[in-house]
Amino acid sequence: MRISVVFAIFVFVLFPFLASAISDDKPILGFSEKQLTAQRDLENKFDSSLNAENLREWMKRLSARPHHTSSPYDKDNADFLAGLFSSWGYETQIEQFKVLFPTPKTRVLELVAPETYKAELSEPTVSEDATSGQHNEQLPTYNAYSTDGDVTGELVYVNYGIPKDYEDLHLRGIDVKGKLVIARYGASWRGVKPKVAAEHGAIGCIIYSDPAGDGYRYGDVYPRGGYRNENSVQRGSVMDFTEHDGDPLTPFVGATENAKRLRRQDSSAITKIPVLPISYKDALPLLRALEGPVVPQEWRGDLPITYHIGPGPAKVHLKLEFNWDLVPIYDVVARMNGTTYPDEWIIRGNHHDAWVNGATDPLSGMVVLLEEARAISELAKAGYKPKRTIIFAGWDGEEQGLLGSTEWVEMHQDELRQKAVAYVNSDSNSRGFLDVAGSQTLEKFINQVSRDVEDPYKKISVQQRARAYKMMEGDPAAKKEARDREDLRLPALGSGSDYTPFLQFAGIAALNIGFGGEEEYGQYHSIYDSFDHYLRFMDPEFQYGVTLAKVGGRCVLRLANADVLPFEFTGFANDIGAYVTELKKLTEDMREETEIKNTMIQQKIFEAYFDPTKKFVVPEAQEPVPHLNFAPLENAAENLEQLAKDYQKEYSDAMKEEKVSAEKMQKLNSILMLSERALTRTEGLPGRPWFRHQIYAPGVYTGYAAKALPSVREAIEQKKWKAAEDQIKMVAETLDRFAEEVKKAKKQLD
Amino acid sequence: MRISVVFAIFVFVLFPFLASAISDDKPILGFSEKQLTAQRDLENKFDSSLNAENLREWMKRLSARPHHTSSPYDKDNADFLAGLFSSWGYETQIEQFKVLFPTPKTRVLELVAPETYKAELSEPTVSEDATSGQHNEQLPTYNAYSTDGDVTGELVYVNYGIPKDYEDLHLRGIDVKGKLVIARYGASWRGVKPKVAAEHGAIGCIIYSDPAGDGYRYGDVYPRGGYRNENSVQRGSVMDFTEHDGDPLTPFVGATENAKRLRRQDSSAITKIPVLPISYKDALPLLRALEGPVVPQEWRGDLPITYHIGPGPAKVHLKLEFNWDLVPIYDVVARMNGTTYPDEWIIRGNHHDAWVNGATDPLSGMVVLLEEARAISELAKAGYKPKRTIIFAGWDGEEQGLLGSTEWVEMHQDELRQKAVAYVNSDSNSRGFLDVAGSQTLEKFINQVSRDVEDPYKKISVQQRARAYKMMEGDPAAKKEARDREDLRLPALGSGSDYTPFLQFAGIAALNIGFGGEEEYGQYHSIYDSFDHYLRFMDPEFQYGVTLAKVGGRCVLRLANADVLPFEFTGFANDIGAYVTELKKLTEDMREETEIKNTMIQQKIFEAYFDPTKKFVVPEAQEPVPHLNFAPLENAAENLEQLAKDYQKEYSDAMKEEKVSAEKMQKLNSILMLSERALTRTEGLPGRPWFRHQIYAPGVYTGYAAKALPSVREAIEQKKWKAAEDQIKMVAETLDRFAEEVKKAKKQLD
Repeated sequence: MRISVVFAIFVFVLFPFLASAISDDKPILGFSEKQLTAQRDLENKFDSSLNAENLREWMKRLSARPHHTSSPYDKDNADFLAGLFSSWGYETQIEQFKVLFPTPKTRVLELVAPETYKAELSEPTVSEDATSGQHNEQLPTYNAYSTDGDVTGELVYVNYGIPKDYEDLHLRGIDVKGKLVIARYGASWRGVKPKVAAEHGAIGCIIYSDPAGDGYRYGDVYPRGGYRNENSVQRGSVMDFTEHDGDPLTPFVGATENAKRLRRQDSSAITKIPVLPISYKDALPLLRALEGPVVPQEWRGDLPITYHIGPGPAKVHLKLEFNWDLVPIYDVVARMNGTTYPDEWIIRGNHHDAWVNGATDPLSGMVVLLEEARAISELAKAGYKPKRTIIFAGWDGEEQGLLGSTEWVEMHQDELRQKAVAYVNSDSNSRGFLDVAGSQTLEKFINQVSRDVEDPYKKISVQQRARAYKMMEGDPAAKKEARDREDLRLPALGSGSDYTPFLQFAGIAALNIGFGGEEEYGQYHSIYDSFDHYLRFMDPEFQYGVTLAKVGGRCVLRLANADVLPFEFTGFANDIGAYVTELKKLTEDMREETEIKNTMIQQKIFEAYFDPTKKFVVPEAQEPVPHLNFAPLENAAENLEQLAKDYQKEYSDAMKEEKVSAEKMQKLNSILMLSERALTRTEGLPGRPWFRHQIYAPGVYTGYAAKALPSVREAIEQKKWKAAEDQIKMVAETLDRFAEEVKKAKKQLD
Repeated sequence: MRISVVFAIFVFVLFPFLASAISDDKPILGFSEKQLTAQRDLENKFDSSLNAENLREWMKRLSARPHHTSSPYDKDNADFLAGLFSSWGYETQIEQFKVLFPTPKTRVLELVAPETYKAELSEPTVSEDATSGQHNEQLPTYNAYSTDGDVTGELVYVNYGIPKDYEDLHLRGIDVKGKLVIARYGASWRGVKPKVAAEHGAIGCIIYSDPAGDGYRYGDVYPRGGYRNENSVQRGSVMDFTEHDGDPLTPFVGATENAKRLRRQDSSAITKIPVLPISYKDALPLLRALEGPVVPQEWRGDLPITYHIGPGPAKVHLKLEFNWDLVPIYDVVARMNGTTYPDEWIIRGNHHDAWVNGATDPLSGMVVLLEEARAISELAKAGYKPKRTIIFAGWDGEEQGLLGSTEWVEMHQDELRQKAVAYVNSDSNSRGFLDVAGSQTLEKFINQVSRDVEDPYKKISVQQRARAYKMMEGDPAAKKEARDREDLRLPALGSGSDYTPFLQFAGIAALNIGFGGEEEYGQYHSIYDSFDHYLRFMDPEFQYGVTLAKVGGRCVLRLANADVLPFEFTGFANDIGAYVTELKKLTEDMREETEIKNTMIQQKIFEAYFDPTKKFVVPEAQEPVPHLNFAPLENAAENLEQLAKDYQKEYSDAMKEEKVSAEKMQKLNSILMLSERALTRTEGLPGRPWFRHQIYAPGVYTGYAAKALPSVREAIEQKKWKAAEDQIKMVAETLDRFAEEVKKAKKQLD
């Protein structure tokens, strides 16, 4: 109701884009002209079967009680999901693993000087929110995989707590050794904050949600609006993912009942210092009690105070104790076997566990996946048989560290490496613009999918709407690219949801799909991520839920039915070329910046500039940035580009002539299916053995954000020049290996 | 005391810049080698006479009571200043004018719906501030030259209230007709806000000081720190300067007792709608009561709320009545006659009136000027005789609209146009970096002055320190320029202090000089701009006051004593060339943006992008930007560059040979003195008859900021293409006329 009071509803009568009306006459990658009509019909039938009311009902049912990992309602939901899949005719299993899942026993945070304040650490009931009062079942506010600890010390505000922030502190002559830090959420995966703090000698870490992050800066706070209110806390995992994802005690293998487990103290995944998330109501007295230098402008949040860095005089006491239990988790896996290629698997997944009630995260995506599965089962009842095997999965334990998906992938890794074609993930979904990232061998594929799905309100394709978004909201270069391209460049995947073990550990081509940008998203990982919140602020009519089902359904149905698997390599080669250019520019920019800075140091510009009444440290001169030999990468990229073009031409001819034998077709598909695996190396990335993909990885110090060509990029960023040159060769080799597969694929079409 | 608690005092031991140690062996523009040593000696004697204690004592005396225009203590201060000048041997006069100066009779601002709140409109006594309790003598918080009014209506938040903000409102389908607007201070001269609001049909205007402007965003608020607290209000004039500066009733002529006066209702200077400044404590209930769309991110300030635009449901009542009195003002003018060229005047000025106690604004500059005058009088007592006439001036009525300086310039305009060499202005001064702007024919001159004055704490030249600042704080292009140049490009003057009538009305070369950047400046135009505030947060040891006296003293002594007036034209020609390039780029950028926007409109990108639940208006397609003929300006700039080089060469030769006759020298100086006048036109700028300078003007819609080549620039910005081409020719003609003067100057040196 509220939404219509605050916002005048005002829908434009729109004409479709002249050049982008959705039409049924465009080719679809992987389908011969003969198959095209049948596939179009199938997709139309699929669409017409979709029903927003199902999404709403399932979300209401699944979010009715807190359902965090291993909670009673988590199990109940898993059973419910399995029941649905079974009722639709899928071969369904609940696969169970046993994982380390700490829950809080003691949580104390208090300001002990110069005045005292005891943090509340609680989220109160809100009368407009029917499930917010289920306090008995709610997990308290905390960070999973924080170590136990009982520490007292001076406080230092460290902004986002990323490495750059500590450089800024150093310039001001401030260190955090023996002190507690308070960082705001944002700019990195939250687990990076305690990791970096500990690396700098801090003894404890507090993370808070500044209103500048997802609070009143963006809109009214809950329940008046959808944004984070003063009491709301972002729970979340702080697992250190550097070495591996998934259960901390069973890296590389499935966490079965009898799996060989590390001792907890030997796990690299648990933080070195205690860490606790708090609300901005609890943060305010702490921040207000800080003195010392005023923060740099870009460090300040939106609290009505002057932000000071400290250290002190604010002194805090943080005490945390956890139950370090092994608990069961429940992955729901449902299968519809393929007829022609049963050993080629298309996997569509979303997690089902939440931090609390999780209407948005993850149920807004999970209910879409259910509707896709239901609609496909309707098609099957009407006689449809997929060529390839379709697997729908509802993962458990995602919130703690992608536990359910990772253990499942580790458990089945050999079979998956042989049989998986692609993994298509969703997580939260809401009103707005299509947001996709993934393996760029699927760039053309997903562009065709998004070209063929209509926005529910605008009556243009979701691709064109996403392109409009990029033209309006991107940085200048991105805006220009959006204007210059007809389709959308597919960004790479970092981490943050269940695609990670598939893509980065198992080398399976992956996509992550969802809508967003027009919601009021301030409930993340709080008790207010509820059905009531979703209905008012996320996607009240579930229209973007239905639209996501159209996107996800097309992904599954096209991958499952294609004559030739719809991988395409010219776009990928182009993306690789762009990454190489980017890395060269990064190096050039670093060289220029280093030269400028060194000259300024030599000319004593810093001394001249600094305020004489304030403490500053002159930065040290840096080693000059050498010229790196990018030739191996450039050659590999160009070689790949040529072979990709050759394959593409051969493919186009073959699809017109339809003369490839079934045997060759099978071989071709098999090569294509395995091609992404050629982008991995068994030894993984340097220092990150579990991350095997050589093209995509999350950054060690960003966590969520993708780093393309990660081994090279991070070596450059960390100024390890020898390693950079070694990795340039290594990645070039990997690309050459991949190019060989493309060549082999082409041969099948000769 | 507080400052040493908050900030650790930490002064670096510094080595001077290798290339920039202050030395006595560098040439000084305008001085033959023979004269150089004498001038250096004079300047050293001048320096050694300066005494920070004088500055402190005078500031204490002058700021002891409120001394706004025409107040008892304003007159008392004028008498005190005149007494000092007289006691030092200057021929001193108090010149009196009679000006329109409204003061408030009624000030009511109240929120009348949806709840009620009555604005306090008062600044309370602060116990740490000895003069803050002088409420009987303090002017209330108000905007001078607001019209009377009694209006009630819905409220709309308009950000800074500049034209761009109304475009953004239009895109959201919001207009302000019949409503009151609330704008935050910043981004423009305050008088622009009610002007633009009235142009858009608003019936009232409220201006408030957001903490993001000069409040807790930057540091602790007064009295803990120096920044604006919740009760503090920025008073200030809102006179409409479009047609002229100075007394609203006597444009173009001195406001003598019997001057012919406009009727008040015929003055263009008074606002069309009532306008009142308020504190953020008074603004908060109003802003909080707004609903409607959430503001764009760049519109939000630092109050702990979601900023909504409205209109309404907040409804406010604003009632203002003023005493529209004619009051006397007191300009203090002190003269030391020149021996060789008594009819060549060097004028050094600062205002003495304040909004309240005005320790910083204007006394921090005024006491420096006094000390310069005193030190020069000491030199005179020891036998020094300036070649040219030196005039020191303390203007009254600056705060209301440069009344004192403007009336004086208008009164003496004929004589000034004949005799004035240059006007050197100061206003507020504090710790930090030299900040200079002015006529670019003085670019080399002021660079040599700043090269020869040492920073009081850093022991490097103030020029090098300012250059370090630009390297650290500028935008990338400015940083690069600072690295690439040894000296500093002199920025152009806009408006905001008493140089305006000299430069822009009378065509007298002008400079504005001061230090700043390390103070805590949140007291502007409030009762807290006090001696106590100054001592803690501005320049506690008056060391930058003494340093400014060294800069100002050198300006005066060099201009007064030079063999050849130190105007230099190659730098000016280079600056003009840069402005022409800038205008071409501006036009190119506008063309590209228009093309992109029109294409996006045609492709319905805006419709595709907008949130369907919110109200938005698709922008209208714009007329394409034509190619303009910049050739006349380019030719004029190149011609000037060549002639400037010729003059420079001839000048250098002449100064070495010292063979120019006294008669030729006099002629040369006379040409140089009048050269700036050649940059003016009697009819003024289009629609702005009082602004005669064709190269520099304040922007009609920015007020403070300089617009170089204003007639061309504003025509382009306003898309008046025909006018732009006409003005290109007109300005080219003006530059040619100026170039002729340079040619004539050269001839004297042949």
